[in-house]
Amino acid sequence: MASLLSTARRARSSVARPAAQALRRQYASAGAAAVSPEASEQAFFPDEPRQPIIKTQMPGPKSRAAIERLGKVTDTRSLNMMANYQQSYGNYIADLDGNVLLDVYAQIASIPVGYNNAALQLAATSPEMASALINRPALGNFPQHDWADILETGILAVAPKGLNQVFTAQAGSDANELAYKAAFMWKRQQERGSYDADFSAADVASAMDNQAPGAPDMSIMSFSKGFHGRLFGSLSTTRSKPIHKLDIPAFDWPQAPFPALQYPLADFAAENAAEEQRCLAETERLIREFPKPVAAVVVEPIQSEGGDNHASPAFFQGLRDITARNNVLLIVDEVQTGVGATGRFWAHDHWNLASPPDMVTFSKKAQTAGYYYGNDALRPNKPYRQFNTWMGDPARAILFRAIIREIERLDLVAHTAATGDYLYAGLQRLAERYPGDIQNLRGQGQGTFIAWDTPRRDEILKTAKAHGVNIGGSGAHAVRLRPMLIFQRHHADLLLERLEAILKQ
Amino acid sequence: MASLLSTARRARSSVARPAAQALRRQYASAGAAAVSPEASEQAFFPDEPRQPIIKTQMPGPKSRAAIERLGKVTDTRSLNMMANYQQSYGNYIADLDGNVLLDVYAQIASIPVGYNNAALQLAATSPEMASALINRPALGNFPQHDWADILETGILAVAPKGLNQVFTAQAGSDANELAYKAAFMWKRQQERGSYDADFSAADVASAMDNQAPGAPDMSIMSFSKGFHGRLFGSLSTTRSKPIHKLDIPAFDWPQAPFPALQYPLADFAAENAAEEQRCLAETERLIREFPKPVAAVVVEPIQSEGGDNHASPAFFQGLRDITARNNVLLIVDEVQTGVGATGRFWAHDHWNLASPPDMVTFSKKAQTAGYYYGNDALRPNKPYRQFNTWMGDPARAILFRAIIREIERLDLVAHTAATGDYLYAGLQRLAERYPGDIQNLRGQGQGTFIAWDTPRRDEILKTAKAHGVNIGGSGAHAVRLRPMLIFQRHHADLLLERLEAILKQ
Repeated sequence: MASLLSTARRARSSVARPAAQALRRQYASAGAAAVSPEASEQAFFPDEPRQPIIKTQMPGPKSRAAIERLGKVTDTRSLNMMANYQQSYGNYIADLDGNVLLDVYAQIASIPVGYNNAALQLAATSPEMASALINRPALGNFPQHDWADILETGILAVAPKGLNQVFTAQAGSDANELAYKAAFMWKRQQERGSYDADFSAADVASAMDNQAPGAPDMSIMSFSKGFHGRLFGSLSTTRSKPIHKLDIPAFDWPQAPFPALQYPLADFAAENAAEEQRCLAETERLIREFPKPVAAVVVEPIQSEGGDNHASPAFFQGLRDITARNNVLLIVDEVQTGVGATGRFWAHDHWNLASPPDMVTFSKKAQTAGYYYGNDALRPNKPYRQFNTWMGDPARAILFRAIIREIERLDLVAHTAATGDYLYAGLQRLAERYPGDIQNLRGQGQGTFIAWDTPRRDEILKTAKAHGVNIGGSGAHAVRLRPMLIFQRHHADLLLERLEAILKQ
Repeated sequence: MASLLSTARRARSSVARPAAQALRRQYASAGAAAVSPEASEQAFFPDEPRQPIIKTQMPGPKSRAAIERLGKVTDTRSLNMMANYQQSYGNYIADLDGNVLLDVYAQIASIPVGYNNAALQLAATSPEMASALINRPALGNFPQHDWADILETGILAVAPKGLNQVFTAQAGSDANELAYKAAFMWKRQQERGSYDADFSAADVASAMDNQAPGAPDMSIMSFSKGFHGRLFGSLSTTRSKPIHKLDIPAFDWPQAPFPALQYPLADFAAENAAEEQRCLAETERLIREFPKPVAAVVVEPIQSEGGDNHASPAFFQGLRDITARNNVLLIVDEVQTGVGATGRFWAHDHWNLASPPDMVTFSKKAQTAGYYYGNDALRPNKPYRQFNTWMGDPARAILFRAIIREIERLDLVAHTAATGDYLYAGLQRLAERYPGDIQNLRGQGQGTFIAWDTPRRDEILKTAKAHGVNIGGSGAHAVRLRPMLIFQRHHADLLLERLEAILKQ
């Protein structure tokens, strides 16, 4: 395979030099830079640092000064690392003090194809990007003339099977809320008897007072430990952690139990199947009995913020059956699982559903957001019902298109499936050596979307920094791996080696 | 004043030629292009078309084909005009059929300094913009090292008086919802007795079930006809039109009456003062008596989507007093009024409040979003309470900084105040000649944020296109003007001339 950088450089004007070039020169002149990944594959970023560079304790003095300054104007108490993105490259994130870490957290699973990716740099400096930034349209009223083309060659080129339309949004939270709104409108039209049936006078009057029937006492069902965002509607479906929800008013909506599987899966096949059946039965009971009619069920393919909780394809097939037979929509929230990380472009591709989900939401690695749908009845029956000023972001839609092309060019979904298998096998070996610290290893066959539980999670995450690895947690006890799609075997080797050093301590 | 284009051109590399240059050449070679604005001021965009260009009925054949194509993949029923932004320039918006319209709607009040503004083009093609796009940070965890600088020299350089901190967001709706969340957290901490008081076990347990006390039965108060967004929390405070709210579950939150002023204001001074007092009294009664305790009151300086409804500084001073003495926060929603259009940078600058609002939200012309605050107690008492993955957008924050610099360089706030006075005087003359079609003219002294009522509003908006003007409505009967800040006297003359031609029909 030709070098990504040299390919991109040839395509590029000689003036707008990509930051990547400056970085490769820098890393090439440093001792850490010689490129010879140990694994039998060519590097996507040949000039990445060969290994992490640790120069100071973190945060170092320059970072501390920058954090103090930032803390005067905004809340920095959740700050993990003051990053220097000019010095970050590929899988490596740099800070202000010269520390460069292997990043397997990737902006909370949001960086798809590497820091300072040259192909994205081309898209980001293109004339159409500049126009999208400076002439940002109100897409619902004044779309740009090439919006259909941008959608068809980008967001819709990777639409989940069976879904051929999209409503674009800004981030995962509002993507989910817009999907919920579509579900409520659909459900109420069904109650009115037809797609075209008009609102009643009572609907119109009561809606303005936030009262039923115009503002209906309906609900969206979600699962225990699910995470779907933190705006008021999405937060009402989020059940991850108290700190996400405390003090915020919420709708009285139902939550179904999500299966609590036991690991290793092969040893608990019967117990896990029974657990999934129990959860499905309770889901169906709630749909039928919850006093506020359920318009939709929203579910993550892998519950991410809530602790990396998995369920089997059979569970999701059952959920599709239950929602279909109870006339309730199924919304699959692929905000964190989508765009390749599980070894399929969409995580729900693993399920082999008989009929597609009704809506699929996306964000994070897509760098833009929205929901896919395939059913014309999910277009509200009148204009201006699903509407806002911007209705998405052409600039980020152009960027997502470049991401998709990069994923296709480098075959990154298949690559991630293979790298994930390799990494998972290495973690299994580590788990045998350190069974107390790597419990319930999960994500086999799910690309690099891998996690495990450990009683000393927070300590491990902190120690990892000193070992040159930026890594995240989920739920109360899980270490979650969310590397980019350009994470390769030699990165996996390095991660495994560093993890072992941490666990040995 | 030096030409904006020539200044920008000097500053610019010779390779990345701004679209603006191509456009000025094109318009300069067209018959419509000679530059000599009638008014006694130099043109900010000297090579703008001298007047609108109408080549076809709208939508013309190319637009119709593009709309049909787009309609297959997303809902186009609210589409107003299929725009060609490559051909749009300054105050003029172009379509695919060669029509070029004077745009006094400006992407629902969202374009601040003109299409293809050369200074914004510079910012949009800068290396820091490219980095912000391709290395988008999770700002709460991994902010970029220059985030404080970008905030201080941009968003915070125009912070409302008394507010020195910011929480950034993506769009107006979520900016408001994040402000509401801050208000709820603040109010509940007060109930607990101190900023540092910990949650009770009952809080923690009930929050996960969406029940009080953890998910408290508290409220945000808004005003009749107010508009604050269309996500679930913001929509619960929106009271503009049924079509915005129908079929969407809403919180049972209180709405206070917004003053219904009579025009001309000078003729109804006593009546209007009494009306405002009535509304204030009812506001205070509701705050004291509404069963769900009110954490904050949210108000627009000029109710925009709800019909361009104004109130006097005395009303807002009274509202500040009432909220302060009842220990309720005052959130001023400047999403549509902010960033210069009213002849002050923030519309609430007109009020001369004794103490600042507690939070001010912004979006639209800022091209990014968030809320300003000045009170440390509005930082939640623990990290991760006000948090999401992206927490704003450095790319758009960089763009807003360029917008602010352009506003300062051209003194566009003072300019807009003066142009607004000029335009308002012209509209007064038109109203005298066409009293049936220009009723309740409002916005005097409010820059170009001008509106009036007319019984044939929708017809006028439609007819305006054929006369070369793109213009919007608000509420049920209002024509609203939302020109950009680079709207000048010669544009006002042209608008008045075209309006008169429309009204004569």
